Amino acid sequence: MVSNKEINNNAAELDVMLKRMHDMVIQHVKEGQDLHSVVNYRSPAELYKAVDLGLPEQGAGVDGTFDLIKNTLDYSVNSWNPRFMDKLYAGTNPIGVISEFLLGVLNGNCHVYHVSPVLTLMEVEVTKAVGKLLGMGEHANGLFCPGGSASNLLAMVTARNYLYPSIKTTGYIPRPFNPNAEYGKLKVFTSAHCHYSIDKAALVLGLGTESVVKVPTNEKSQMRVDVLEQLIQESIERGETPFFINATAGTTVMGAFDPIRSISAVAKKYNCWLHVDGSWGGSAIFSETVREKLGWLDGSGLADSFTMNPHKLLGVPLQCSMVVTPHEMLFPKANTLAADYLFHGNPYDLGAGTIGCGRRPDALKIFLAWKFYGRDGLGQRIDRAINAASDFTDLVRERKQFELVTDPSLFCQVCFWYVPKELEEQVKTWKKDPQVWKAKMTRIIHLLHERVNHSGDFLVDHAPLDNLPHFFRIVINAPTVNVHRDLGALLDAIEDASKNIAWNEVSL
Amino acid sequence: MVSNKEINNNAAELDVMLKRMHDMVIQHVKEGQDLHSVVNYRSPAELYKAVDLGLPEQGAGVDGTFDLIKNTLDYSVNSWNPRFMDKLYAGTNPIGVISEFLLGVLNGNCHVYHVSPVLTLMEVEVTKAVGKLLGMGEHANGLFCPGGSASNLLAMVTARNYLYPSIKTTGYIPRPFNPNAEYGKLKVFTSAHCHYSIDKAALVLGLGTESVVKVPTNEKSQMRVDVLEQLIQESIERGETPFFINATAGTTVMGAFDPIRSISAVAKKYNCWLHVDGSWGGSAIFSETVREKLGWLDGSGLADSFTMNPHKLLGVPLQCSMVVTPHEMLFPKANTLAADYLFHGNPYDLGAGTIGCGRRPDALKIFLAWKFYGRDGLGQRIDRAINAASDFTDLVRERKQFELVTDPSLFCQVCFWYVPKELEEQVKTWKKDPQVWKAKMTRIIHLLHERVNHSGDFLVDHAPLDNLPHFFRIVINAPTVNVHRDLGALLDAIEDASKNIAWNEVSL
Repeated sequence: MVSNKEINNNAAELDVMLKRMHDMVIQHVKEGQDLHSVVNYRSPAELYKAVDLGLPEQGAGVDGTFDLIKNTLDYSVNSWNPRFMDKLYAGTNPIGVISEFLLGVLNGNCHVYHVSPVLTLMEVEVTKAVGKLLGMGEHANGLFCPGGSASNLLAMVTARNYLYPSIKTTGYIPRPFNPNAEYGKLKVFTSAHCHYSIDKAALVLGLGTESVVKVPTNEKSQMRVDVLEQLIQESIERGETPFFINATAGTTVMGAFDPIRSISAVAKKYNCWLHVDGSWGGSAIFSETVREKLGWLDGSGLADSFTMNPHKLLGVPLQCSMVVTPHEMLFPKANTLAADYLFHGNPYDLGAGTIGCGRRPDALKIFLAWKFYGRDGLGQRIDRAINAASDFTDLVRERKQFELVTDPSLFCQVCFWYVPKELEEQVKTWKKDPQVWKAKMTRIIHLLHERVNHSGDFLVDHAPLDNLPHFFRIVINAPTVNVHRDLGALLDAIEDASKNIAWNEVSL
Repeated sequence: MVSNKEINNNAAELDVMLKRMHDMVIQHVKEGQDLHSVVNYRSPAELYKAVDLGLPEQGAGVDGTFDLIKNTLDYSVNSWNPRFMDKLYAGTNPIGVISEFLLGVLNGNCHVYHVSPVLTLMEVEVTKAVGKLLGMGEHANGLFCPGGSASNLLAMVTARNYLYPSIKTTGYIPRPFNPNAEYGKLKVFTSAHCHYSIDKAALVLGLGTESVVKVPTNEKSQMRVDVLEQLIQESIERGETPFFINATAGTTVMGAFDPIRSISAVAKKYNCWLHVDGSWGGSAIFSETVREKLGWLDGSGLADSFTMNPHKLLGVPLQCSMVVTPHEMLFPKANTLAADYLFHGNPYDLGAGTIGCGRRPDALKIFLAWKFYGRDGLGQRIDRAINAASDFTDLVRERKQFELVTDPSLFCQVCFWYVPKELEEQVKTWKKDPQVWKAKMTRIIHLLHERVNHSGDFLVDHAPLDNLPHFFRIVINAPTVNVHRDLGALLDAIEDASKNIAWNEVSL
C-alpha cells in the first residue's frame, strides 16, 4: 500500500528507484557488449514458470517490482549484443536510452503546441531537415507516426483524402457502382517484394487487398518500371483508377531499392500519388556515400510522401517513424476534422494532420541522436553497416556449404542457404523440381535456424521470397558488429549445428 | 565526431550520461511538486530564439546534447506540477519513469514472441486481467495500440473484417450500388458527445463521416438509448446496415458514461458490434467504488471490444492504450495477412492481429504500475480523483461569479463559466439569445483562459459543447492535486485575471 507521503514525494522516490536501476542497467549493457547470451530462451510455458507474471491486488512496492524488473532483464533479448541480427532494428545506444528516459520524465504529448512546445518544434525541424536531405526543398514538412506501417497508412489515407476529398464525407463508392463518382475502383501499385503494410493499409481503407497490384521485380529485387506502366494502362482500360504508387526503398527481405526517379515519371504521367516506403532504407540518406555515389535514393525529392524509420537503421529506440512531404500543410488540409475542444487554430498543433489524437513525441529521439552524432556520425553508421554487409557477403561466398541468394548483397541484409555436406548430391536432384527444392531446403533451413537461435548465442531470421526455399536472412545494423568476431562465428555456429544433426535420419 | 572506442563502450558512455541525467531529472521533478511554474511559456517565434533547434552536420557529443536536454526540460510543460490540469493525462510517477527507462534499455518489439518473450507475456496477462475486471470472462484477451484513437480504429476495422470478411479482399461496395453485397451502407452509431476518433476511424475506413450517426444525449450527457434504437430502425428502413455502436465510457468534455448494458441490448437485437470507448473512463474499473457502487461501467463485459488508456487516468506514461475483447483469437482471425517472412505460426506472435508490424511493448508500463501499486492502489487513485473533483465542484458552486455547466460534475472534469461582475447585467441580456450568449461568453472565457495559461502558474483548458458558449474544463487526475491549495488557487487566479481586464473597454 502506498502512503500519501510517498505519493507526494515523487522526487525522493524516483531518486531511490533510479539509483537502483542504474547498476542493473549498466550490467545489462555490459553483458550485451561482452557477448553474453543474446537470449536465455524459454518457451511461453517455461517462461510462466520462471517469472511471476501475476497481477496483484495489493502493490508489491519497490522491492517486489524490482524483482520483476530484474527478471525482465534476465529473460528478455539483450539487444545490446551485436549478435542480435534477427530484425531490421538493432539495439539502441546511450543517447537512445537517455531520450526515452527524458520522454518518460516529460510525459509530453505532441497533439497541441502549448502542452509540448519544445517537442513540437523538434518535430517541425527534424521533418523539415529530413525532407531537405531527401531533396524535397524548403517547404518540406512531416509527422511522426507510431511505426512504419502507421506511416504508410497515413500516407495512403492522406493521398486518398487529397485526391478524392468527397470520400472523406460520403465514403468510398467507385464507378461503375456509383456512376456519379469521379473515380473508378482505386488501385494501388507496389512491387511484389514490398512490405505487407501496403496490403494492410488497402485493407483498412476498405479498398480490399485485391486493389493492390503487385508489380514483378527484376533480378535485383527492384520493381520493373516497364511492367508498372503496362499494368497501370491495363487497369485504366478496365475503368479502374490507379491512384497510389508505392516505391520501396530497402525491401524487407532483400534490401532492394526501387528506382524512384523513373517510377516518379510514371506516377506523374498517370496522375498517381507517389509514396516511398523507406521504413528500412530511407535513413540511408544520411550517408554521403549513398547520396552522392550509390544513388539508391535518387529521386526521393519527387515523392509526394516518404516514410522513414530512424528506429531501424539509425539505432533510435523503437518507435520512431515519420512521413515527410514536400507539400505545404498537406496533412492538416487532407485529414483534419473539426475538433474544437482540442484544436484552437494554432498551425503548430500538429495533431490536426494525424489520424489520431494524443501522440508520443518520438521526434525528440531522432533529434537528440542527430544532435549527438551529427548528420555525419549517423551517415558513418550507415556506411559501416553497408561495408560490414559487403565483407560478410565475401565471408559467406568463401565458405563451401553456403550459397548466397543474391551476390553481391543489395544493402544491409545478407541472405543465404546452407547445404549440409551429406545432402549435397540430393540437393542437386531436388533443384530440378522447384517445388521439391523449396520444400526440402526450407526444412533444412528451419532446423538449422532453430538450433542456432535456441543456443542463445545468436538471434537471426529465416525468410521466404517468391518461390525460393526459405533462407537465412542476417541483418547487419549495429555499429558494434565485428565481421570476423561475430559474423564469422555465426557461420561457424551454423556449420556446428549441421554437424550435430544426423541428416540422413531426418525426414525432410 | 564519435570514435570507435566510444561506439564499442556503450556501458561506460551510458554510465556517464545517466549520472548526468540523474540530478537534472530529480531537480525537474522537485520543481514540479514544489509548484514552480507549470510552463515557462514561449510562442514558437520566441522559443526558436531561446533554444538552439539546429540540426548539426557534426555531432555535439555529450556536452552539446546535454545543453539541449537542459533547455528541453526548462521550456517544456512540467507535468509533475499538479496544476497541469489541461488534458486528460497528468504527469506520470516514479514507476512510470522507470518503465520508460527500461523500455529504452530493452528496445524490444512486440510483434513476435521470440524477440520479446517477457514483454509479450506481460501483454497477454495484463489484457486478460483487464478483461476479467471488465467482466469479460476467462477468454478475455487484447492488444496494445499507440493511443486511444488507434485502439478505436483497430476495433472498427476488426468489427468490419469480422462481420463482413469479403471487404478484406474485394473492398467495400455496399448495396444498392453493388446488388450482390451482403450489406448496405455501413453505419456507425455513437453519442453526440463521443470523441472525434470515431469519426476519423469511419473516415479512414472509407465509410465517410456521413456514415456516423450522432445520437442525442440526455441532460447527463449520456447517449439516449431510445433514440439510438429509433435511429437504427430508420437506418435499416433506408436499406443501410447499422454495424457498429460505440458507447463512450467517460466523454472527453464532460466525463459522461453511456449506459452500456441497455445499449448492449440494442446492439444484440440489431446484430451490431458493441464497442466501448473507455479511453478516458475505462480505467475507473480499477476502483471498487466504481465497480460495486457507482456502476458507471456496468455491462462492460457485454462489449465486443473495449478501449482503455492507462496513460490517462492511471498515470502511466503516454502512450499506453489497449483494446480488450471477450472473443478468443479475435484479432488474428479478423486481421491477419500472410506475412511469412515475419510470422512463423506462433500464437504468441501478437503482431498478427494488429494493423501494424513493429510495435512498442507498452504493456510493460501498466504491468509495472499494477505490480507496484496493486489493483487496490490504482483504484484508490481513481477514488481520490473523483472525490477531489466533487470537492472542487463544491468550491466552484460557492463562489459568486462562477457558474457550473453541470452540477454535480459527472466524473473527473469540472466545467464552468466565469461571469465578470462588471458584465453581470449584460450576460443576463445575452442569455436571451443563445447565439449572442455563445459568442460573447466564449470570448470572455478565451480571454481569461489565455491570461491564466500564460501566467505559467496553471495549465487548464477551455472546451465547446453543443450550442453552449465555451467553458473552462478542469481535469482532476494527478493524485498530488490538493483541493484547496491548487484548485482554490485556480479560482483565485481566474478572479485575478478578470480584475486585470478592463471589461468595459473590451470589444466582445
